This record gives sequence, C-alpha cells and structure tokens, in this order.
Amino acid sequence: MATDSPTAVSTDFHVFDTTLRDGAQREGISFSVADKLATARLLDEIGVGYIEGGWPGALPKDTEFFARARSELKLRHAVLVAFGATRKAGVRVEDDPQVRALLDAETPVVCLVAKSDVRHVREALRTTLEENLAMVADTVAHLVSHGRRVFLDCEHFFDGYAADPDYGVAVLRAAFGAGAEVGVLCDTNGGMLPMGVARVVADVRSRVEGRLGIHCQDDTGCAVANSLAAVEAGVTHVQGTANGYGERAGNADTFALVANLVTKMGLPVVPPECLAELQRVSHAIAELANIAPDDHQPFVGASAFAHKAGLHASAIKVSPELYNHLDPAVVGNDMRILVTEMAGRASVELKGRELGVDLEGHADAVGRVVDQVKVLEAEGWSFEAADASFELLLRSQLPGAPAPLFELESYRTTVEHWANGVVMSEATVKVHVDGERIISTGEGNGPVNALDNALRQALVSRYPRLADVSLADYKVRILGWKGGTSATTRVLVDTTDGVGEWTTVGVHDNIVEASWHALVDALTYAVRHR
Amino acid sequence: MATDSPTAVSTDFHVFDTTLRDGAQREGISFSVADKLATARLLDEIGVGYIEGGWPGALPKDTEFFARARSELKLRHAVLVAFGATRKAGVRVEDDPQVRALLDAETPVVCLVAKSDVRHVREALRTTLEENLAMVADTVAHLVSHGRRVFLDCEHFFDGYAADPDYGVAVLRAAFGAGAEVGVLCDTNGGMLPMGVARVVADVRSRVEGRLGIHCQDDTGCAVANSLAAVEAGVTHVQGTANGYGERAGNADTFALVANLVTKMGLPVVPPECLAELQRVSHAIAELANIAPDDHQPFVGASAFAHKAGLHASAIKVSPELYNHLDPAVVGNDMRILVTEMAGRASVELKGRELGVDLEGHADAVGRVVDQVKVLEAEGWSFEAADASFELLLRSQLPGAPAPLFELESYRTTVEHWANGVVMSEATVKVHVDGERIISTGEGNGPVNALDNALRQALVSRYPRLADVSLADYKVRILGWKGGTSATTRVLVDTTDGVGEWTTVGVHDNIVEASWHALVDALTYAVRHR
Repeated sequence: MATDSPTAVSTDFHVFDTTLRDGAQREGISFSVADKLATARLLDEIGVGYIEGGWPGALPKDTEFFARARSELKLRHAVLVAFGATRKAGVRVEDDPQVRALLDAETPVVCLVAKSDVRHVREALRTTLEENLAMVADTVAHLVSHGRRVFLDCEHFFDGYAADPDYGVAVLRAAFGAGAEVGVLCDTNGGMLPMGVARVVADVRSRVEGRLGIHCQDDTGCAVANSLAAVEAGVTHVQGTANGYGERAGNADTFALVANLVTKMGLPVVPPECLAELQRVSHAIAELANIAPDDHQPFVGASAFAHKAGLHASAIKVSPELYNHLDPAVVGNDMRILVTEMAGRASVELKGRELGVDLEGHADAVGRVVDQVKVLEAEGWSFEAADASFELLLRSQLPGAPAPLFELESYRTTVEHWANGVVMSEATVKVHVDGERIISTGEGNGPVNALDNALRQALVSRYPRLADVSLADYKVRILGWKGGTSATTRVLVDTTDGVGEWTTVGVHDNIVEASWHALVDALTYAVRHR
Repeated sequence: MATDSPTAVSTDFHVFDTTLRDGAQREGISFSVADKLATARLLDEIGVGYIEGGWPGALPKDTEFFARARSELKLRHAVLVAFGATRKAGVRVEDDPQVRALLDAETPVVCLVAKSDVRHVREALRTTLEENLAMVADTVAHLVSHGRRVFLDCEHFFDGYAADPDYGVAVLRAAFGAGAEVGVLCDTNGGMLPMGVARVVADVRSRVEGRLGIHCQDDTGCAVANSLAAVEAGVTHVQGTANGYGERAGNADTFALVANLVTKMGLPVVPPECLAELQRVSHAIAELANIAPDDHQPFVGASAFAHKAGLHASAIKVSPELYNHLDPAVVGNDMRILVTEMAGRASVELKGRELGVDLEGHADAVGRVVDQVKVLEAEGWSFEAADASFELLLRSQLPGAPAPLFELESYRTTVEHWANGVVMSEATVKVHVDGERIISTGEGNGPVNALDNALRQALVSRYPRLADVSLADYKVRILGWKGGTSATTRVLVDTTDGVGEWTTVGVHDNIVEASWHALVDALTYAVRHR
C-alpha cells in the first residue's frame, strides 16, 4: 500500500500548521512566547510549508511572538503566517486597528477568517450578507496592496453550504477576486464525514477558480479522513495541528496528515528527509505543551508499532512487513516487541552525532548508555526534550569524563505560611567543592527557587560563569499517579545564559528531589559545555 | 446534517463490539472476569447487537467468562459471541480441542478468524492455500451443524486483496458455502484510507453473495471513517471497541461508530433510547479498564462540546445549534462553557445553569463574580478545567453562603535530603475549627502531599466524609516565568471520593501556596457539595 519515498517536495501543495493558533485553543494549553518560538522551530523541522503563529493585535502574547520571530526565528522550510479577521462591519479597512496589527506583524502571509454561513453572518456577526462580502473583498485587497499573500479561512463553510451553497461560493469569489491565493473550506463544527466532504469539495471545485484548502475538526472522529477525502476531491492546501490539539475533540493531526499524504497517497508534501522527524517532533511539542503524549497516536505514538509478542513473535521478526502497515523507521518510530526499549545503539549514536560528541571507537560506552537509558526510562525519565541531560549522561561514560562539580552532603528546603499571611521559602545546602565544605542558605519564591539560589551561591565563587545563568522555564508532570502516595514526578528545567537555552530533566517520587536532579544537571552543563 | 432520531432498530444491521476480545489487546488493559461481565452489561445498555466476549479454550479467563455468563449475564439487546480460530491444518475438525472449546462456550454465535492473505497462509500458518480453504469450510460447517450462527473474520483481508484479490474472495465463498452468515473484511494492519476501503468493499460486494462486515484498526487515524466508508459501500456489520481500545493505535471506537451511523447517516442501528447512554457507558468502561477517559474523545469526551465563551457567549446562548455539530444531549453529553479570559455575564450565567446553581434574581452576585474572575484571570487563575473552584466562587457570592471549613493560622512544609541519601517531607498545619485550635503534622512523598495529609488529619474528626476523599491527579503549570524570581505557578488538583471526581485550582508565586489553595477548595467542595 505504501508508495516509494518521494524524491522532491511538491511546491504545489500547502501543508499549513496552525498549532500555535487553533491548536492553542485546546483546554489546558498555555504556550509562552518562548514555547511558541520553540514549537515553530520544531514544526519547521518536519518540513511544513506554512506555520500560523497566532493572532497579532488580539492577543498581546501573539503580538510579541511575531515581533521576536523577526529576529529570533530562522525557518528553513516554512513561511510564517499571521491570523486575523476581516475588517469590522461599517469600518473602513484602513481604520481597523486589528487589520493594522496584521500588517505590523510583517509576515509574508496573512490568513484571514471570514463568515461563510448566512446564519452566522446574520446572528453572530449581525450584519448583512452584502457587507460581509465587502469586508472580505476590502480586507483581502488591502493586505494584497501591502504586499501580503492572503489565505481566507471560510468559517462554518460546510454547515453554511448545507443551508445556502451559493453564499459560500460568493464569499470564495469575493476573496479570489480581491487577490486571495487560497480559499480554505473549514468544517468548524466538525460534524462532517468523508463522503460529504468529498461531495461538497467537488461541487465547489466545479464552481470556483482558485486554490482550495481544507480545515477539519475531529468531532466525528474523522478529521484526518475528511482532510484526505478533500485532497482526493481537489484541494491542495491542508490545515492541521500537532498531535491534533484543538478545541473540543481537536483538529486534524498534522503528523497523521503528512504521513498519510506521503506514504499512502504518494504526494511528496514535505522534503523526503523530514518524514523521519515526525515522531521526535510530535513528542517534543507534547513536552512544550505540557500534555502527556498519546501512546496510541497513529504513526508517532510509542505503541503505534507495538506488538504483543505471542505465538507470532518469530513470524513478526522474520517478516515484519506482514504485521506493520508501514516501516516504522519511515516516520522515525520503532517497532516494539514486548517491553519497551526506546533507546537502541543506533539512536544513541545518531544523537551523539547530533550533539557533536565523538563516539568513534567507544562501542562499549554506547552500550552502557543504552543500558542506562533503558533503566532510567523504565523509572519515568525521558530524554526526548532534555538534550543537555542526555549529553551529560553520554559524556559521563567516555574516557576522561570530568568529576561532578560538587558532592552533596544534604539539603533542606522549607515553605512557611505565617500567621500574618506572608509566604516564605528558604533552603540550606551543605556541599563539598574541591575538598571545602560550604554551607549556603538562600531564599526564593518557592522551595525549588530557594534551593537553586542556595546552590548557585555555594558554587559561584568556584564557577564564576554561573553568575550569568538563570532558570528560563520549569515544567512538572506527574506520572503514574496511584492514589496520592506513590506518584512519580518528572521535572524539566530550561536554563539560559543569555546566549542560548538548554533543557535538563529529573525524576523522583518527591518533586523537590526531581527538581534538584534537573538543577544540578543544568548548572553542570553551564559550567562544562557552554 | 443530523437526521431525526431513529424510531426503530434495524435488525438488518449488526453493531458488533469486540472490546472484551480485541480491545483487551491494548497495552495496560487487564480485565478480570468480573470486569468483563460488568463491561458486557454496559455494552448491552447502548444497544449493540453482538458482544464478542473472548477466546474460550485459548485463555482460561475467557473460558471462565463464558461459563459464568451463562448464569450471570442477562442481556436485553445483545447476543454473546465466542471467538476462535478455524481448525488446525491437518487435523479433523471433530478432533480439534480449540473448536471443541468454542462449542462448550454455548454462545448462539461463534466468530471464527481465518487467514485470507496468501502470504500469511504460507509464511505464518505454513500451510497450503487449499488446506486453508478446507479449514474454513470444515470449521464453519461443523459449528453450523451444532446449531451455531457463524461469522468469519478474514484477517489481513485488505493487504491480502492487494496481493491476490481472488484468494480473499475464495475464502469468503468457502465460508458462505459452508453456512457462514457474515464475512468480515479486516484491516488488521490498519493501513487503509477510506477511499481504498470503499473501492475494495464495492469490488468484493460485486463478486460475493452474503452479508459483509468490516473491522478496522486505527493506524492511519481513519478507523471510524474507514468503517463508515465500508457501510456506504455495502457492508451491514461493523466491528468496534469501546473508546477505540486495541493494539497499537487501537480499533474503531464503537461509540463514534454508533453515534455517526445514527445521527449522521440516519441508520437506526441501536434502539433509540440507547443513544443517550453513550457518554455514561464510555466513562464507566474507562473506569473498568483503569484508563483515564480521553477528554477530547469525539461525542463522549468531557471536552467534546466545550466552548471558550468569550465574545460569542451570547450568540452560543441564543443559537447553540450554530456552534455544535449535534445536540450533546443526544449522546448523553453536555455543552460546557469554559470560563476564560473575556468572561462576561452571559458565560457566567450559562455556566451557573450547567452547574445547577440558581442565579435567578441575583444579578448583583453575577456581576461580582464576573469582576472577580477578571481579576483572578489576570493573575493567572484559570477556571476552564476547575469547575469545582468556580462553583465555590459562584456560591460564595450568593446569600446564605456557608463559612469556610476552618481558619488557617499558619503552615510549614519541609523537604530534606539527608546525608544518608534519604529524602523526607514533613508538614505542620495550625488551624482553627469551630473555635478549637488544632496542630497537626503529616508526612508525604513531597511537600504538598505532606501538607495534604496534615490538613486532612486536622479536619477529619469534624468532617468525617473527608476520610473517603483522596487526590486523583495533580498538575502544575508555570506561567509568565521572568528569569527565575517572579514566576506564577498554577496548580490543578483532581480529587475523588470513589464516586465522582472534581477539579480545583490555585495560583500563587509559590508552588506550595498555589497547591494549598487548590487543596482547600478540593476539601471544601467535598464537604459542601458532594
């Protein structure tokens, strides 16, 4: 069923990712600007053509994202897109501050959302059908005249088409007439099935000139299939979000879309070398979103190619192609038999090369790292997002590995809520540095911050560069909660020295001890490898 | 798009659930016999026609399940099905103990699995194509002669069809010729897309007489869509599992299948009164399987009909049908309005109605809640996922609001890493309950767990129902980190009393104080509103 690997990317097909805009609508996701920049870089690595970054002007965080993106974001494949609405009813497009904010974002592409369902125009927008068409045409023309490429998201297109097909077509014609490049048919309520999508797309295709796109929500569990049915029916622009994040049941999953388009439908929609990044990027974005990855996610889930080794274990081993719909390596995943074994020699060697660690002639060290990673992952550690901790682990097994920065004797960290309402955190660490015993006390806005301050103060005279180092972000995930007494906590710490950032990990039953591990790695990495 | 409710069940369509057989293949699921009996009863409540209970003879637990089912399981709608394989190669069917065990299960229906891909016959089964056809015909005829209805699962049918379409057809003809009632086309590797499924089903339909069925796995993210495409192409028997449980990426989700077939395709495949049980049954089976329900699951997830209110709250209130693809009540679900930034009176009123809080005549209280939510959200609070905290906030503004459970004097919580490597957490709280001063100390696996234990111990004699209450999950999110000293931490706590769960939120610069707020809300909600 799988076709041969593509050899070139089709420039005629748009893979448009809206994780940072529509995906961020998922309950519980709250990306910082730094998270958004990191997510954009990851999406670029899988070769999507367009990354919708947010709604400048409407959300202050998104305005800041586009401002920082201009200097901080270097994309290899993708073009950055700002999202916004058509001008307000009864307002000149030149006078609409929201449209101004879209131009100020300085992206090559703007994606506008417009109403295309007569009931939404009347009941939600509370304007006339004619004014809505003028809003579309004016806003598209204005942005085009300022040198922007413009895509138009037609909200509630399919419900609207059922109610009044001519109006949806009129909105598309208004947009294309004003210079829009893509008209995106959105199943905003997510109620469609593939057969219906194919029928509507074919119908619209026959009535409108111009590139059509598709945006599906997963309310019937068919977002991916609906998108693919639309491609079969003639759209050449597909919108998705990482891991299907989005409101309600979510959006079409960008990773499943890309994998299906390339491997099942033979469309080279991303550069061939990017496909093998899908699994890694999926997990890294899950970490940034602070959402546990879905082990059962198609293509990229940890269990997507897992087989219970029963009677057929040897048959699977001899002829894996009989039991896998796809070679898992194509999407960067692995076949798993029995218990997990995430890390193999090949991935450690690959990772070492990526980190610039020379492993030539150190087969024994690689073996020890593989063994250690297996043990640690079984305990809940994850190095997918914690390159710095992985590099420290890797280097610790090579000849001439440096000694630890210090030896810990003990620490204590306290939070007190006093009778006067003051909340206070204080920590004391006792460490040995080059034979000297140092006792240091720090305060902070929490037990971990106090510990960090105490430890940094203990070490800074011996390692002066720690003066420039500070925590940039801190993430906590509780793993395998079993009724409040035996949970495991995984902590990820992002650290910066003002030039770059690195991420470290710690795991323990106790959140403070888990944080301690990540902190020690963070400071060690700063001293040894920055 | 939705059709009117069906008025009668079609006896011509089979909804066949295999949660207890194929669904149990999911990593981590381990049903006891009691779990299986309870799950079968729940599946019967949604009106499926067939429940595949397991593989008697192969798995001792399944043999016991069928034995107990004979006396303990009274099904209103469903017929019980035993699963097994065709006779072994070179063995007389009368002499095959596995076939004997299928008869001993005494189910009205037996579902046999057979190879239908020439490569699997040769490489996995290691027999001839002719012998495999004889195995199918012999086993079907034997079971039919003993009064059983027989369905045949054609394993790897679609991959096999691509390799040699005539052989799959030959297997089906052998089965139908021997008296089988259904030939099920299985996408065992899950690699199909809807367009390919529709093409193969239509082709087979034109070549074979007899009822066809479909069994899809979700490896391309299209299991539900593939099943529906097969129905469009002529199958009248659909297999699924509760919540899509199954190997790898899982199976087609029975609940999404039923909801789509009834509400989108107008097929009355379950009795009309059963549809509203979908949400409850989905969650109950998740509990039995000990898997956290997926909030974003189509139709039945807690977020499946959740809307961020904001500017359009009033439009949603007036015309919910513009924003929902289906009335959530049809599948037993609710529309939820997420109280988020931009919360206005309309969304607070909507939310109040949802929570069953009577706000009639309390316009002033609603105004105060709106003001408070705005201030709290600006500080980083989020009530999206914390209904219990929002309900406490809402009720606190109504006349006759109860006093707090206790007054806090002070608390202290400590984490120590001792010189011997032991990590220890201890907390002391000083509180006043009904005028009495109580000092209580607790230990825990972290600073918050220790605090929780100390507080609970201080309160339990006054509020005995707290004895049944425990933390179910704990989530931490760092907001607006600005260089290590001024971060805000948001904590969400899920609490359970064994019957239900509720979520509370706390926000503070200090993670422990944020957790304290969420804990106090959790215990207050337990005492006042459970």
